[in-house]
Amino acid sequence: MSKIRVTVWGENVHEHEMPKVGEIYPKGMHGCIADGLLEDPAFDVKIATLDMPEHGLTDEVLEETDVITWWGHAAHHKVDDEIVNKVKRRVLEGMGLIVLHSGHYSKIFRSLMGTTCSLCWREADERERIWICNPGHPIVKGIESPYFEIPMEEMYGEPFGIPEPSETVMIGHFEGGNVFRSGCVFLRGNGRIFYFQPGHETYPIYHHETVKLILKNAAKYVAPHGTIWKDGAPMIPVESAPDPISAKH
Amino acid sequence: MSKIRVTVWGENVHEHEMPKVGEIYPKGMHGCIADGLLEDPAFDVKIATLDMPEHGLTDEVLEETDVITWWGHAAHHKVDDEIVNKVKRRVLEGMGLIVLHSGHYSKIFRSLMGTTCSLCWREADERERIWICNPGHPIVKGIESPYFEIPMEEMYGEPFGIPEPSETVMIGHFEGGNVFRSGCVFLRGNGRIFYFQPGHETYPIYHHETVKLILKNAAKYVAPHGTIWKDGAPMIPVESAPDPISAKH
Amino acid sequence: MSKIRVTVWGENVHEHEMPKVGEIYPKGMHGCIADGLLEDPAFDVKIATLDMPEHGLTDEVLEETDVITWWGHAAHHKVDDEIVNKVKRRVLEGMGLIVLHSGHYSKIFRSLMGTTCSLCWREADERERIWICNPGHPIVKGIESPYFEIPMEEMYGEPFGIPEPSETVMIGHFEGGNVFRSGCVFLRGNGRIFYFQPGHETYPIYHHETVKLILKNAAKYVAPHGTIWKDGAPMIPVESAPDPISAKH
Amino acid sequence: MSKIRVTVWGENVHEHEMPKVGEIYPKGMHGCIADGLLEDPAFDVKIATLDMPEHGLTDEVLEETDVITWWGHAAHHKVDDEIVNKVKRRVLEGMGLIVLHSGHYSKIFRSLMGTTCSLCWREADERERIWICNPGHPIVKGIESPYFEIPMEEMYGEPFGIPEPSETVMIGHFEGGNVFRSGCVFLRGNGRIFYFQPGHETYPIYHHETVKLILKNAAKYVAPHGTIWKDGAPMIPVESAPDPISAKH
Repeated sequence: MSKIRVTVWGENVHEHEMPKVGEIYPKGMHGCIADGLLEDPAFDVKIATLDMPEHGLTDEVLEETDVITWWGHAAHHKVDDEIVNKVKRRVLEGMGLIVLHSGHYSKIFRSLMGTTCSLCWREADERERIWICNPGHPIVKGIESPYFEIPMEEMYGEPFGIPEPSETVMIGHFEGGNVFRSGCVFLRGNGRIFYFQPGHETYPIYHHETVKLILKNAAKYVAPHGTIWKDGAPMIPVESAPDPISAKH
Repeated sequence: MSKIRVTVWGENVHEHEMPKVGEIYPKGMHGCIADGLLEDPAFDVKIATLDMPEHGLTDEVLEETDVITWWGHAAHHKVDDEIVNKVKRRVLEGMGLIVLHSGHYSKIFRSLMGTTCSLCWREADERERIWICNPGHPIVKGIESPYFEIPMEEMYGEPFGIPEPSETVMIGHFEGGNVFRSGCVFLRGNGRIFYFQPGHETYPIYHHETVKLILKNAAKYVAPHGTIWKDGAPMIPVESAPDPISAKH
Repeated sequence: MSKIRVTVWGENVHEHEMPKVGEIYPKGMHGCIADGLLEDPAFDVKIATLDMPEHGLTDEVLEETDVITWWGHAAHHKVDDEIVNKVKRRVLEGMGLIVLHSGHYSKIFRSLMGTTCSLCWREADERERIWICNPGHPIVKGIESPYFEIPMEEMYGEPFGIPEPSETVMIGHFEGGNVFRSGCVFLRGNGRIFYFQPGHETYPIYHHETVKLILKNAAKYVAPHGTIWKDGAPMIPVESAPDPISAKH
Repeated sequence: MSKIRVTVWGENVHEHEMPKVGEIYPKGMHGCIADGLLEDPAFDVKIATLDMPEHGLTDEVLEETDVITWWGHAAHHKVDDEIVNKVKRRVLEGMGLIVLHSGHYSKIFRSLMGTTCSLCWREADERERIWICNPGHPIVKGIESPYFEIPMEEMYGEPFGIPEPSETVMIGHFEGGNVFRSGCVFLRGNGRIFYFQPGHETYPIYHHETVKLILKNAAKYVAPHGTIWKDGAPMIPVESAPDPISAKH
């Protein structure tokens, strides 16, 4: 069976500007996410970052990507609209997309959702507890308990400005009291999208074993299972209509 | 009971450039749509067109609009992005939106759907027959038969590049054989959106009694029933958290 | 405007068998729910209970009901299947249904959902905090804060065995840590269904002002807005087909 | 990779009572469906029929089934409720289900949908044309054209009394004019359900190459991808709550 080709996209800004982030993620957050995936031989993994030409997302890279993961925060506005459109086109054709944490406000996620994708937030070293809504779902395969915990996380709380998901897989609860739809699946075009809330840059969340497991599961779940749908707006000639059309004039 | 305030937005281009369209719609397509709504005392109706300052959609107009109907075709690209964003913000806050025919490719619809909104098409004076999927739905109230016909219409066919609707209300079939999800409801943010396929500019479709009835019904259906949701991304101070947060360091 | 005719259905068992419940609800839980609705002149309210002939849900009562609320727990199995089928038929035709608390395991709710409707639970006088996912939704109209609290409630926790809702309106969190989709809207046939989790019999929850407000809002939201859909499986004669059918043999 | 274990369930009544059906399907409709699947080495196929003990669906068979296909028509009422409940339990746990043609009125489908599953119909040797709504969907993999035709089929028409599907994959159109949501995916519990309309007993529809292809694709699509979810209604002891619960009395 051929491997699932994942491109891990990282904004790669905090890692250089915030010493703490650089310490937790010496290879960048993207490097840590990539290493987690590479524990599973099912995956081929590439890295792409904002500072690369075309943000690392050339036509060739995108054509050869089955699943893209997206972490961004400080520089959403620096992502070129043309690149966003290319990624979006590929998702609608069938490429999987995993949007991580502050990626809720990325151009690519907002553009695919059509809504504000807003939420409320707080940075206070809160423990998060994430509950599973469907214990049999492929994305939570291997998690034996009804919930798992992240010792410290930024709070993300409802209302979360998303369209109703196709599948609500996880709901998070934060020490300060707030709740959040922390794991949601959406279908758009021929692509599957998974939004996963954990991952504030100042905590070692992508080193967390359960988070790593979920990313592996999710990459398999959103990987293309059909064929590519290159849709357009074709004019269908009258002579190609399956039924004859009567002249009206 | 206070009236539902509808703003009928029209591109108002074909009416001036294509004599046939001007003949069918001497007051513009928007004028005809507005007149249809005004048959029902439930509505207050304003008109706004592309050529007006701010396309007729000033902040004040939008604030005082409960439902907006949108017909555009030739000049989607001339609609200012800033105005589109304002309309979108209002829809997400709770304003109803009715997208008509070629409006499937308008910036506002594509932006709210997050998908291509593509379809296949053919101009061949085809009879369309529109079947009703839920005869009890408010949008088809008053239609006694299982389908209705439009004598000549542009063909719009599947695949239609939309997310799965919240409600599939009607499916159209065209003389040449194609089928299309001709009436679909979507929920986005706090707003309801109804896409309705009939309405090619060269046919007198907005004079059609059943089409007029559906537009009245739909305007009532998508009108705001809740309150305004002005969402944002508020930071919630630690001292406002309902539960105490323990210091971790 | 004519009134919305609500039938409040109550199992009416705990009230007689558990002194505490009788004390909290001297007129029965159904009586308290009915009184709450009657604070709003929009409603006409009837009561029906398990011990009445046909559980109070005669054909005549059902025909004259716009919205039914359902509270049951100890005696789900004593509800006659034929009555359940009648209620179900009416919901599919367009009658609104509000399912309360332990009604998650009622025949009517399970039958409409098609799933187990299971959940996990604990009786420990826990404080519940209910967060709102769409502050503009008609069902939460008038609630100004992002959450409200119920001082003591039975815990209901995920996984909740429901199909994905059409709208997730509220998420509850319990003192012991669990979370739950506490307010969900479903569309089935031509009817709207609202599941609302609060309401354990040993606490005065239907006296709670916010709970009362939500029940009023919900009854308006699920009330029929269209017409009745009496569906069946009609054979359509060949001569009634809109298009001629060619003889194949 | 282990094989997908499919159980093809057939009512096996028409085959014996209608000579024409026996001629088209000498091994039974189930035999033809099974043979089609067996063209693909991905599948292990078992047959089960109404007349077998426990309708061929013993606990052991169900435990060892990944996907069940269901064709029934004349004898829906003869299917034992207890067996239906077992099949339903397995679907909610994660087993895939493909419901064929007149199976729309089977106990298992109606019970999982929660709606009437009604439709209108006509037997008149009509050509059906089935259009594809998402050309990239795994279920239509290998179909190169925008539609395919079945020379003669019973007409099934809207309104189809189903909940809104998770994915509308195909829409059928019949010679006499009616349209129908002919291919729909639903998610219930941890299981995927595909309803596929073609398959009237008096036509050789399960010999049709495209129909056979779709059944193979669909069996792969609805096959379990996660783990089994054996849900229940566990009481969670106070001492197992992740957070301490304060005594209120």
